[in-house]
Amino acid sequence: MEVKKIFLPESELPRQWYNIAADMPTPLEPPLHPGTGQPVGPDDLAPIFPMPLIEQEVSQQQFIDIPEAVLEKYLIWRPTPMYRAFNLEKHLDTPARIYFKNEGVSPAGSHKPNTALAQAYYNKISGTKRITTETGAGQWGSALSMCCCLFGLECKVYMVKVSYQQKPYRRLMMETWGAKCTPSPSSETNAGRKILEKNPDSPGSLGIAISEAVEAAVMDEETKYSLGSVLNHVLLHQTVVGQEAQKQMAQFGDYPDVVIGCAGGGSNFAGMTFPFIRDKINGKQVEILAVEPASCPTMTRGPFAYDFGDTVQMTPLLPMHTLGHSFVPEPIHAGGLRYHGMAPLVSQLILDNLITPMAIPQLETFEAGITFARTEGFISAPETDHAVAALIREALKAKEEGKEKVLLLNWSGHGLVDMAAYEAYLSGKLKNYELPQEEIDRALSDIEPLPKPKQYRK
Amino acid sequence: MEVKKIFLPESELPRQWYNIAADMPTPLEPPLHPGTGQPVGPDDLAPIFPMPLIEQEVSQQQFIDIPEAVLEKYLIWRPTPMYRAFNLEKHLDTPARIYFKNEGVSPAGSHKPNTALAQAYYNKISGTKRITTETGAGQWGSALSMCCCLFGLECKVYMVKVSYQQKPYRRLMMETWGAKCTPSPSSETNAGRKILEKNPDSPGSLGIAISEAVEAAVMDEETKYSLGSVLNHVLLHQTVVGQEAQKQMAQFGDYPDVVIGCAGGGSNFAGMTFPFIRDKINGKQVEILAVEPASCPTMTRGPFAYDFGDTVQMTPLLPMHTLGHSFVPEPIHAGGLRYHGMAPLVSQLILDNLITPMAIPQLETFEAGITFARTEGFISAPETDHAVAALIREALKAKEEGKEKVLLLNWSGHGLVDMAAYEAYLSGKLKNYELPQEEIDRALSDIEPLPKPKQYRK
Repeated sequence: MEVKKIFLPESELPRQWYNIAADMPTPLEPPLHPGTGQPVGPDDLAPIFPMPLIEQEVSQQQFIDIPEAVLEKYLIWRPTPMYRAFNLEKHLDTPARIYFKNEGVSPAGSHKPNTALAQAYYNKISGTKRITTETGAGQWGSALSMCCCLFGLECKVYMVKVSYQQKPYRRLMMETWGAKCTPSPSSETNAGRKILEKNPDSPGSLGIAISEAVEAAVMDEETKYSLGSVLNHVLLHQTVVGQEAQKQMAQFGDYPDVVIGCAGGGSNFAGMTFPFIRDKINGKQVEILAVEPASCPTMTRGPFAYDFGDTVQMTPLLPMHTLGHSFVPEPIHAGGLRYHGMAPLVSQLILDNLITPMAIPQLETFEAGITFARTEGFISAPETDHAVAALIREALKAKEEGKEKVLLLNWSGHGLVDMAAYEAYLSGKLKNYELPQEEIDRALSDIEPLPKPKQYRK
Repeated sequence: MEVKKIFLPESELPRQWYNIAADMPTPLEPPLHPGTGQPVGPDDLAPIFPMPLIEQEVSQQQFIDIPEAVLEKYLIWRPTPMYRAFNLEKHLDTPARIYFKNEGVSPAGSHKPNTALAQAYYNKISGTKRITTETGAGQWGSALSMCCCLFGLECKVYMVKVSYQQKPYRRLMMETWGAKCTPSPSSETNAGRKILEKNPDSPGSLGIAISEAVEAAVMDEETKYSLGSVLNHVLLHQTVVGQEAQKQMAQFGDYPDVVIGCAGGGSNFAGMTFPFIRDKINGKQVEILAVEPASCPTMTRGPFAYDFGDTVQMTPLLPMHTLGHSFVPEPIHAGGLRYHGMAPLVSQLILDNLITPMAIPQLETFEAGITFARTEGFISAPETDHAVAALIREALKAKEEGKEKVLLLNWSGHGLVDMAAYEAYLSGKLKNYELPQEEIDRALSDIEPLPKPKQYRK
């Protein structure tokens, strides 16, 4: 029998995170203070994040040691297995060799704990008692809940009210891990109360939930805030994925021609691809595909500009691909891919032609997910299905061209807690949504007056 | 860092199933025909099962080769990892060394595909086009759906109507894997129509669903029926679990003093423990604990007698521990442990003192599950929580006695699709239920006229 999957022994768990900031051909522009327009300094961030994470956010060190206590708890689910997708290859009748890395084996079912664990640890050693965060679909909130509990921290999650009502399983996971989960807008914060005064029936939004979580952190000295994507230190922690993948590909005796990940804020994508982009900077031939929904085409149709991370304009201005902080995407069934912006690191690498962005319509993603489930067994998260769809496009292209291409997918999570999305697809209720240019223009008009980052080009 | 978990390489996947029938000190009594009371022959079963499975059902061969095609697809999730539960040990402050085998890594989230895959394969090579089955909580129905789809078979699942309505995620998993899932009672079968005539609002029961699935199989030549537990061949297929566990324990440099599994029909329990019971028969010191709910105490309070496998008395009579085929357990939140009988193999081994049964009340099982989730990260299925509760009892006993005991748990599945059960617990809605003796007596009065199996005793 041919080898189907490779587990690395625990001794092969990466001991360092890879910091791509040290290797980028174009240095990243700094975040700007929303009031002064000046670069943000560590002191500006200190009320929100513990100092070790702030240091990582601006670090230029190429490799950063993973603390022993984090390594020890990474072992709960890491190293994760890498699979050869023989059944899918056969089904597609493609000459391509398809590999996927299974990040769904973590207790929370996705890649999110890779950074949640590190963030919980650095908060713990910095004296934090409680972490606040927001969650939309619930993948991030549940991952942080689990990791806080592993390090003995309290966790408070502001969950977008409509999700809170529609996705009780995610909330229950958080509560099982001991977290407090509150529907947002809540009456616990000024931001929440202000919204509720105007509209007591507000369904909430990620922007409002961020405001509540940040406010709760700022108001209490022992409380900090945590973010599940977008920022440099978050992407940094995810690079264990790609480093493991490189060792596993080598054990399979292969090297990818194309590496594929879905990108909402950019964290699972970065985690898998940054170590391969390092190879690419050093001269390797490898294509890197970032896949987003056609209905929220941040990378493919949003300009590179300074913009706020949240709708209520509280966060620093980040240099990124953005559809505008007031952009409200269609309610598609991949909650993790509905963010108006994209991680600055990913955005800059797109600009430098090291990453190729691609947008895929919704129906094709679910069709791909069904094909994947019926061949490889695993049911993907709706977010992950975007990457699966791109993978299938590439495999069919290889077939057309008669090329033995090697394709590598980051299978970022399973969909067992998101089956309602499959119900909508299977019952024919879903449709594609191509975003009209007027909507993008309208949202972007808000950021016209904002400064544009310098654009170094290779 | 100490080793937290051991993955076996794929080359270590067991190549044979272990058939404990060959080693039992007391031979198993045969099933009896419900009409004639005579031992059931292969021809009686041929309309329902394909011949290779009937042969396995009565085989006395100690090891049975696993076909290459089954091995190949086992690799989708096997070998499964074994963990040392350092965090739980520390939390309990016990001198015991705790290990658990994670069967939740299969795409369906439980051990069930271990037999579903084998059954789908043998049906495929026997010319079956379609498999029918019943499902209560949905774990078995989803596992069979996935495995039928991997071998290109149609799958039809009769799902107890009340579960169908309350557990849409399980149904959606089945549909994602291409199966047809029908709420039972349905108007598609005589059995279903008969029930609906009397009571159009019938919530259904496992007994009714079995009748429908069997009828649908009998009525069509290309359709066979499949069962997820209880029968000898089902338990046989699960023994890959225990065989892997033995290799992994050896790699950890340990051997268990106590092996623990939950038991509803007996399949995950048998899969883990039978290879260790073989050691025990050969003189090894090892305690084998089978854990059931106090509200459905088949092994601890039910007599060993011939009884029907279903409520409507269509199946052969099986020699087993039983609460009576008319017994209706309380609606507890561990649907997989609400069967009135117990696998004949497990029942006989209890009688021979090779297995120790134990009943645990509901609240303790959820408390144990929460402790496990908050220390080891993983959220268990409510069924699995019964084994976790017994494990914690044993670990605390070891602490009291100051003994360095080695405990091994079969962690049979995750609970991410069963979070409603945790909701009931966390919100204080659950209570314990000790079954009154009158209820047992009433249900058992039905089986008084049935023949008792011969009881050889060692």
